[in-house]
Amino acid sequence: YSDVVTMGETMALMKAATPGPLAHAGSLELGMGGAETNFAIALKRLGTSVTWLGRVGQDSLGDLVLREVAAEGITTLGIRDAGAPTGLMIKERRTLEHLKVWYYRSGSAGSRLAPEDVPVETIRNAKLLHLTGITPGLSGSAYEAALNAVNVAREAGVRVSFDLNYRAALWTEEDAGPVFRRFIELATIVFAGDDEARIAVGHGADSFELAHKIAAMGPRQVIIKNGPLGCAAVIDGVELRQEAVRINAVDTVGAGDAFVAGYISDLLAGAPAEERLRTAVRTGAFACLVPGDWEGMPRRHELGLLDASEPVTR
Amino acid sequence: YSDVVTMGETMALMKAATPGPLAHAGSLELGMGGAETNFAIALKRLGTSVTWLGRVGQDSLGDLVLREVAAEGITTLGIRDAGAPTGLMIKERRTLEHLKVWYYRSGSAGSRLAPEDVPVETIRNAKLLHLTGITPGLSGSAYEAALNAVNVAREAGVRVSFDLNYRAALWTEEDAGPVFRRFIELATIVFAGDDEARIAVGHGADSFELAHKIAAMGPRQVIIKNGPLGCAAVIDGVELRQEAVRINAVDTVGAGDAFVAGYISDLLAGAPAEERLRTAVRTGAFACLVPGDWEGMPRRHELGLLDASEPVTR
Amino acid sequence: YSDVVTMGETMALMKAATPGPLAHAGSLELGMGGAETNFAIALKRLGTSVTWLGRVGQDSLGDLVLREVAAEGITTLGIRDAGAPTGLMIKERRTLEHLKVWYYRSGSAGSRLAPEDVPVETIRNAKLLHLTGITPGLSGSAYEAALNAVNVAREAGVRVSFDLNYRAALWTEEDAGPVFRRFIELATIVFAGDDEARIAVGHGADSFELAHKIAAMGPRQVIIKNGPLGCAAVIDGVELRQEAVRINAVDTVGAGDAFVAGYISDLLAGAPAEERLRTAVRTGAFACLVPGDWEGMPRRHELGLLDASEPVTR
Amino acid sequence: YSDVVTMGETMALMKAATPGPLAHAGSLELGMGGAETNFAIALKRLGTSVTWLGRVGQDSLGDLVLREVAAEGITTLGIRDAGAPTGLMIKERRTLEHLKVWYYRSGSAGSRLAPEDVPVETIRNAKLLHLTGITPGLSGSAYEAALNAVNVAREAGVRVSFDLNYRAALWTEEDAGPVFRRFIELATIVFAGDDEARIAVGHGADSFELAHKIAAMGPRQVIIKNGPLGCAAVIDGVELRQEAVRINAVDTVGAGDAFVAGYISDLLAGAPAEERLRTAVRTGAFACLVPGDWEGMPRRHELGLLDASEPVTR
Amino acid sequence: YSDVVTMGETMALMKAATPGPLAHAGSLELGMGGAETNFAIALKRLGTSVTWLGRVGQDSLGDLVLREVAAEGITTLGIRDAGAPTGLMIKERRTLEHLKVWYYRSGSAGSRLAPEDVPVETIRNAKLLHLTGITPGLSGSAYEAALNAVNVAREAGVRVSFDLNYRAALWTEEDAGPVFRRFIELATIVFAGDDEARIAVGHGADSFELAHKIAAMGPRQVIIKNGPLGCAAVIDGVELRQEAVRINAVDTVGAGDAFVAGYISDLLAGAPAEERLRTAVRTGAFACLVPGDWEGMPRRHELGLLDASEPVTR
Amino acid sequence: YSDVVTMGETMALMKAATPGPLAHAGSLELGMGGAETNFAIALKRLGTSVTWLGRVGQDSLGDLVLREVAAEGITTLGIRDAGAPTGLMIKERRTLEHLKVWYYRSGSAGSRLAPEDVPVETIRNAKLLHLTGITPGLSGSAYEAALNAVNVAREAGVRVSFDLNYRAALWTEEDAGPVFRRFIELATIVFAGDDEARIAVGHGADSFELAHKIAAMGPRQVIIKNGPLGCAAVIDGVELRQEAVRINAVDTVGAGDAFVAGYISDLLAGAPAEERLRTAVRTGAFACLVPGDWEGMPRRHELGLLDASEPVTR
Ligand SMILES: Nc1ncnc2c1ncn2[C@@H]1O[C@H](COP(=O)(O)OP(=O)(O)O)[C@@H](O)[C@H]1O
Ligand SMILES: Nc1ncnc2c1ncn2[C@@H]1O[C@H](COP(=O)(O)OP(=O)(O)O)[C@@H](O)[C@H]1O
Ligand SMILES: Nc1ncnc2c1ncn2[C@@H]1O[C@H](COP(=O)(O)OP(=O)(O)O)[C@@H](O)[C@H]1O
Ligand SMILES: Nc1ncnc2c1ncn2[C@@H]1O[C@H](COP(=O)(O)OP(=O)(O)O)[C@@H](O)[C@H]1O
Ligand SMILES: Nc1ncnc2c1ncn2[C@@H]1O[C@H](COP(=O)(O)OP(=O)(O)O)[C@@H](O)[C@H]1O
Ligand SMILES: Nc1ncnc2c1ncn2[C@@H]1O[C@H](COP(=O)(O)OP(=O)(O)O)[C@@H](O)[C@H]1O
Repeated sequence: YSDVVTMGETMALMKAATPGPLAHAGSLELGMGGAETNFAIALKRLGTSVTWLGRVGQDSLGDLVLREVAAEGITTLGIRDAGAPTGLMIKERRTLEHLKVWYYRSGSAGSRLAPEDVPVETIRNAKLLHLTGITPGLSGSAYEAALNAVNVAREAGVRVSFDLNYRAALWTEEDAGPVFRRFIELATIVFAGDDEARIAVGHGADSFELAHKIAAMGPRQVIIKNGPLGCAAVIDGVELRQEAVRINAVDTVGAGDAFVAGYISDLLAGAPAEERLRTAVRTGAFACLVPGDWEGMPRRHELGLLDASEPVTR
Repeated sequence: YSDVVTMGETMALMKAATPGPLAHAGSLELGMGGAETNFAIALKRLGTSVTWLGRVGQDSLGDLVLREVAAEGITTLGIRDAGAPTGLMIKERRTLEHLKVWYYRSGSAGSRLAPEDVPVETIRNAKLLHLTGITPGLSGSAYEAALNAVNVAREAGVRVSFDLNYRAALWTEEDAGPVFRRFIELATIVFAGDDEARIAVGHGADSFELAHKIAAMGPRQVIIKNGPLGCAAVIDGVELRQEAVRINAVDTVGAGDAFVAGYISDLLAGAPAEERLRTAVRTGAFACLVPGDWEGMPRRHELGLLDASEPVTR
Repeated sequence: YSDVVTMGETMALMKAATPGPLAHAGSLELGMGGAETNFAIALKRLGTSVTWLGRVGQDSLGDLVLREVAAEGITTLGIRDAGAPTGLMIKERRTLEHLKVWYYRSGSAGSRLAPEDVPVETIRNAKLLHLTGITPGLSGSAYEAALNAVNVAREAGVRVSFDLNYRAALWTEEDAGPVFRRFIELATIVFAGDDEARIAVGHGADSFELAHKIAAMGPRQVIIKNGPLGCAAVIDGVELRQEAVRINAVDTVGAGDAFVAGYISDLLAGAPAEERLRTAVRTGAFACLVPGDWEGMPRRHELGLLDASEPVTR
Repeated sequence: YSDVVTMGETMALMKAATPGPLAHAGSLELGMGGAETNFAIALKRLGTSVTWLGRVGQDSLGDLVLREVAAEGITTLGIRDAGAPTGLMIKERRTLEHLKVWYYRSGSAGSRLAPEDVPVETIRNAKLLHLTGITPGLSGSAYEAALNAVNVAREAGVRVSFDLNYRAALWTEEDAGPVFRRFIELATIVFAGDDEARIAVGHGADSFELAHKIAAMGPRQVIIKNGPLGCAAVIDGVELRQEAVRINAVDTVGAGDAFVAGYISDLLAGAPAEERLRTAVRTGAFACLVPGDWEGMPRRHELGLLDASEPVTR
Repeated sequence: YSDVVTMGETMALMKAATPGPLAHAGSLELGMGGAETNFAIALKRLGTSVTWLGRVGQDSLGDLVLREVAAEGITTLGIRDAGAPTGLMIKERRTLEHLKVWYYRSGSAGSRLAPEDVPVETIRNAKLLHLTGITPGLSGSAYEAALNAVNVAREAGVRVSFDLNYRAALWTEEDAGPVFRRFIELATIVFAGDDEARIAVGHGADSFELAHKIAAMGPRQVIIKNGPLGCAAVIDGVELRQEAVRINAVDTVGAGDAFVAGYISDLLAGAPAEERLRTAVRTGAFACLVPGDWEGMPRRHELGLLDASEPVTR
Repeated sequence: YSDVVTMGETMALMKAATPGPLAHAGSLELGMGGAETNFAIALKRLGTSVTWLGRVGQDSLGDLVLREVAAEGITTLGIRDAGAPTGLMIKERRTLEHLKVWYYRSGSAGSRLAPEDVPVETIRNAKLLHLTGITPGLSGSAYEAALNAVNVAREAGVRVSFDLNYRAALWTEEDAGPVFRRFIELATIVFAGDDEARIAVGHGADSFELAHKIAAMGPRQVIIKNGPLGCAAVIDGVELRQEAVRINAVDTVGAGDAFVAGYISDLLAGAPAEERLRTAVRTGAFACLVPGDWEGMPRRHELGLLDASEPVTR
């Protein structure tokens, strides 16, 4: 049994190598991605064992997704769904500074996650269950599956971590708000950006106010991550702030997942809150230094490269 | 106004450059394809003016589809559908000798073609309307659109050509059969492979028997195309046979569309039936000599390359 | 008939994907380019209809050029010249910061543009004719063609816009100067950089002085564009200045053409001068954010991306 | 515990995409390969569970090797050896018809396999241990490791399969001969080509004579595989012959490993000898239809593609 | 001083990696080529020292040409011509079976070769001067240069070899004929294809008759090469015939140059005529087994690969 | 005879095109590199004749190395060593900001350089011998070879230049220190970074103190290069400082070699010390503007691009 369990939709991912409209891209790089597996990969590389569960189609892109997750040493509970194709996302770097993601995921295998898929025993034997706000937005059954998993965890005394991760392509802020609140109430640890926090709890003067509002709903650990501005947290009632590492980011997608993995890995290793946040901003920053949603996730011993003075090791 | 009008779904098309499972393809070539635009491109390159109508999404892959069709000098009636994405197909060359196509087209913009989209005036002023059996299989409204177009054409005395083009990913043979028969009855010219003909008219001892059975339903010109075996036809009651050109095929996808274009282009130019078939097998063969569904379609003056003795022109 | 007509040489364009001497580039990306089609593409994407006329060879690179122009929805009057090849340019990015363009255009089809090619009726029915200072530098007959077009426009009361666009590979400043002045005298709107303006009108203390000198020769609208420094204009005698948008430019080639298109598109839409310049610096800046001379040109609804706070849309 | 255990050196593998001298290859495709993992992958795809053990360096190419093996669902006992680098092989396709492999494996981590690495419990609980003649040729300790594994298996009553796999880059035929004989005596099942069999048992008039000579040394199942000529076997004293499948081979590397996997998978499933050989030539042939040593290995349900009449599935 | 001297135009060479119209090629491979350097490279690899002289522009493609020639160990007398660009050729593989070469060489640096460029001392000290019929077709001065070189050689008693190499893009058969005859009269050794021989000496029933007609004009060694049909020769009055090696050709461009190099290398090594022809068909065949005009040229020790039974060396 | 002679190991070099772990790189670019040939290439491009000597294997990567060195117009004394493979290095750009080099060079052909390889006559006739601290670290015989070369030079009154170039993958600082001191004592000119200088002479407050300590051991010219901080030198007892050029570096590997070449080229041309350093920082900076260890090295006339105001030349 792994220390951490996570669950969600992971899709094939295509993207052009250089910026510009898709219509001028002669070819696309093919890979896979999903917030939960990004997180799981970062977590595993940091040294924490992890299980991922999700549905993919009975198709070649499903093979691709499961191969890559297994390649990372993650216990892979991949359910093959013969009734629907593996979801797809296409990343268009319209300009050097702006990315657009196109989804082919409505009705996908991944969105057909259902309550009966939940790996009950695995969750009961884990130390933490991690979910994102994407899963309840995928479909009714996925919503039920997420809820089911949380309930299994709570009953077994397993901590629940929840990253809001709002996706405008899936639902409106109005639809997402109540669902986010439902999961926040059941979670032990909550992660959100300023904007996402607002969807859940409405206006807040700053990150701390938003964190306090969320904490007031139940979670003892609330962390607000704000990209290059770093993060603010309310942990056991205490306000903490951690600056971001100064870097030249090349690809910020996946930084949030890396951040959460850094925090959770340290938490399970028993590190104090300040250290958890310090690790989190470092894994988040590291992820920004390599193109790709998850390929560049750091192994623990690599985090030191952020401080290296010499750019070449030989 | 163009001489020929066609209508159907054209999708983005991704494929790996080398054979093998998709899961091992690091990148995919990006293009577009669709039986009707393959046909239209071949037709235009042979010198016949043509209009294509179809729906694509309000997305970047829709831009790609419309750019490429327009690039070929085809009058492009591209309807942007904000309510659905542009369809997608992924070609996996599992082995050197076997190709598998994965579709992301259910609920696509292209499948939402509707009777009111039909370009009535353009059809009335054309010499020929060309449809494939794919369109009525896409959706109820697409079926109605195809029927509507045919009726407009018939009322205006415009010839109707119909290529059965059965797609197992869209519907069963049982569902397709009656629909094929419906369109055959309304068509002037029908194209089919042996297997497709059987879906429509049941068993037949050979291609000629199948062709006669189809001709008995109305069409005066019935052409059965059988890949490297060439074709058999019943035209105005006369049986005609034409051998295929001997070539080393590298990609047979699109050969059928090239064949139909060769036939139709010559028909509109007033060539006799034997010549039409001879041109058809030549354009079909030519299309097999270049990778890609339509990129290699011959211009009329290039057909002579099939007979060239010297492999290099300089 | 289109609102705008333009005319000039468009060539095949080859360039290496990464910086370094050409001698170490194993491959070159193949595309096409030319100041007038860059402009036409930008204009069309902004919503203004446009016709382009030019000569290409009866060769495959000519096919390439005409395909791409047509792909953009531009009315393409492509004259196939069997007597000369399509011109060629090769872009060598010698270092990250310096680009060298090698031309194979002397005696090219494009340079053989002749007075009788001028699309007289199309110009008479347009709202504006746009030319660059490249065309009169190509050959004697191209010079005559440009002059002919301008005269047709003036007689029909169609506005003439002229972008100096000095090319040192074509002619010396001494040869270009008198020709620039000839066209300035006939133009309604003139675009130039500081250096180019000096070729035409000699020394000037600053951009405004140069603009006034040009305006004194006839044109009521003179715009001096100066890269990251933005632009200065004298429009109907009024001095206007517009700062550039702050961006990280990746490829500045084509920015000038985008700028001109922004200005002209707004002009034809009836926008006031300040707004025209504001749009111009935005389209110019946008073009710098994508590699390629024209592929990244913005559609009008995309201009807002310049102000986007979130780097990812999903 | 898996049904099959195998052990050996797997290396990073580089190869040019097109034929020609390496000195003209601007880039190399990067992957991994090794006879035992090729076999394990084929076996797993056919439905038989398998464990692989081997050493790789504490380096990035070691990460690559272990990732890919794990990706295939193989239980991966990857020992990280901090004292030596992961081995490397470079495939040069000198001409379309001739391949040359360059090795960087002397002193590699993989060659440092040692007797104490042997996964004793895993072998004891398996149904079959598979080794190749490469391992004893790597180093003295690797020889001991192979011997140790065989002894563990024999003591536990686990069948031992041995594929001679002579590599001229590792040792001379004189050195390999006695070692091959040592392992043949201990094996239950032996695979070899005609030439390899001769290294072990000297001259033989044909494949059957060679097989009988080997069988006389102990193994009850001896299979001689001879590329496009198919195979000959002496199984429980009975001579069997199986023709190869007729195909256009694109890459024969890995065919032997696929063949062995087909045979072993069927053996463990209880199939009779004739069927085992029939499956073996089919998996061998399938492997030849895709470039790459192992990427194209068939899943069991895909074997039918060898008989498919239609080249496209859609 | 080298044993052989050759002289001619070598150009940059671009070609698409896969078959299809250039207009659909997103990128082109960049290299260089020219009949005389193809020959020189083949010759050097076979072990004969050689000097090449030619003009290139003062540009980056000129750097490329000279780098590659020097890389092969050829004494490179590269004249940089500041007044003209390096010539260019673009190879379009229109279909798998037909290649079209587009030239940008009129007025190129290479075509400006002049009599005063001829390396008089180098020729005087060589054993053989090799020219092709391309050079006299480039320009008047190139014609004079070729003639000058031949005269220098003859006066010094240096053998002259001449390969007709007719290029339809340079001149008509009518123009080439007399020039070919002029050079044949001055040559010791002549190479031609059947068609080329006919341009020079008119009709001939077969290769032997053509060879005799040429021999009657002076040359003691006349070799007619006919692709896969092998060659026929009249050497010192004796008729000799040599079959081609049976191979699957992937790129026949450069085969003729390889053939000539094989013949000349053996001639200078003192081999008898039969052996010269045997080597020639082997080097010619070898060149067909690798894509690229010259990259695959064999080293002498590699010729044995043509007879290898095992497709993999390891 | 060349003005400069250098000697050392040059290896094949592989690197991924984009940042990220090697395990996710589908392909690697293939080239070659080595400090001494980087230097020789830079030197030759600046106009100084140079000879390089080194060993490579009797293999295809050895061909590659020798081809590229010869391509640059360097007199190439390449010894083919049949007993060992050509060395290999793999560059992994782990993040945008950190590079890791993996070596396959232990026991390589290049490391088997031996005293008898030293090109005695060539050194005696040169003006300068250049060595790096890598060579004595390769093996005992390479150490002896380096020493031998230095002695030959000293006896003939040929200046000796020595660049410390510490490589942690080859030896420890403790082992390197005494060797560095041995060579410093014999050298006329010494180049080092601050860190490298410390390995040789222990602590120093700043670059000047380190330079004085080295100068005290014999060399009259000591130059300390410190990346973007520029350099400090003690030349004939005089302290000199030169700032680096302000650039956006894309690849700093090879900058040190370019710097040394700039200095040496100017020295041999008789330029004063200040000018030598100014050229050195310019060639060093230029090398940083192009990816690749040596491909971007400037020709002398290109140095002006560092000051160009216009980013495009056409
Ligand atoms: N540009 C950046 N520079 C430095 N650190 C960054 C940058 N972008 C993200 N990070 C780190 O990653 C964390 C998560 O990134 P963020 O963008 O807030 O997450 P999300 O991807 O969920 O929106 C940030 O809190 C910060 O620590
Ligand atoms: N391998 C081939 N060799 C020669 N001609 C071919 C080959 N494949 C297809 N063609 C030509 O193209 C025509 C249409 O191909 P076919 O495969 O029958 O169509 P479809 O793509 O509709 O199945 C054939 O009738 C034949 O003339
Ligand atoms: N680096 C830049 N940053 C922001 N805007 C730019 C930049 N370069 C160009 N532009 C915009 O594009 C316009 C045209 O660019 P410019 O370089 O002046 O034209 P040209 O290509 O004709 O030389 C400028 O006026 C400016 O608005
Ligand atoms: N060209 C081919 N055509 C058909 N089958 C082949 C071909 N090459 C190999 N095979 C199949 O794979 C099996 C193993 O190939 P072989 O070359 O004998 O093995 P190895 O790779 O060990 O030398 C053969 O027995 C045959 O069944
Ligand atoms: N397809 C082929 N198969 C075998 N050998 C070939 C083939 N093509 C060329 N060769 C060999 O190369 C020689 C020269 O080729 P050929 O095509 O006649 O020359 P050229 O390139 O000058 O036209 C031939 O005589 C033959 O020996
Ligand atoms: N980032 C940079 N910006 C400007 N110049 C640089 C840069 N990096 C290196 N250089 C120039 O190249 C020289 C050598 O670089 P350095 O890194 O010191 O050498 P090495 O490669 O031997 O470590 C420096 O002295 C400097 O002049």
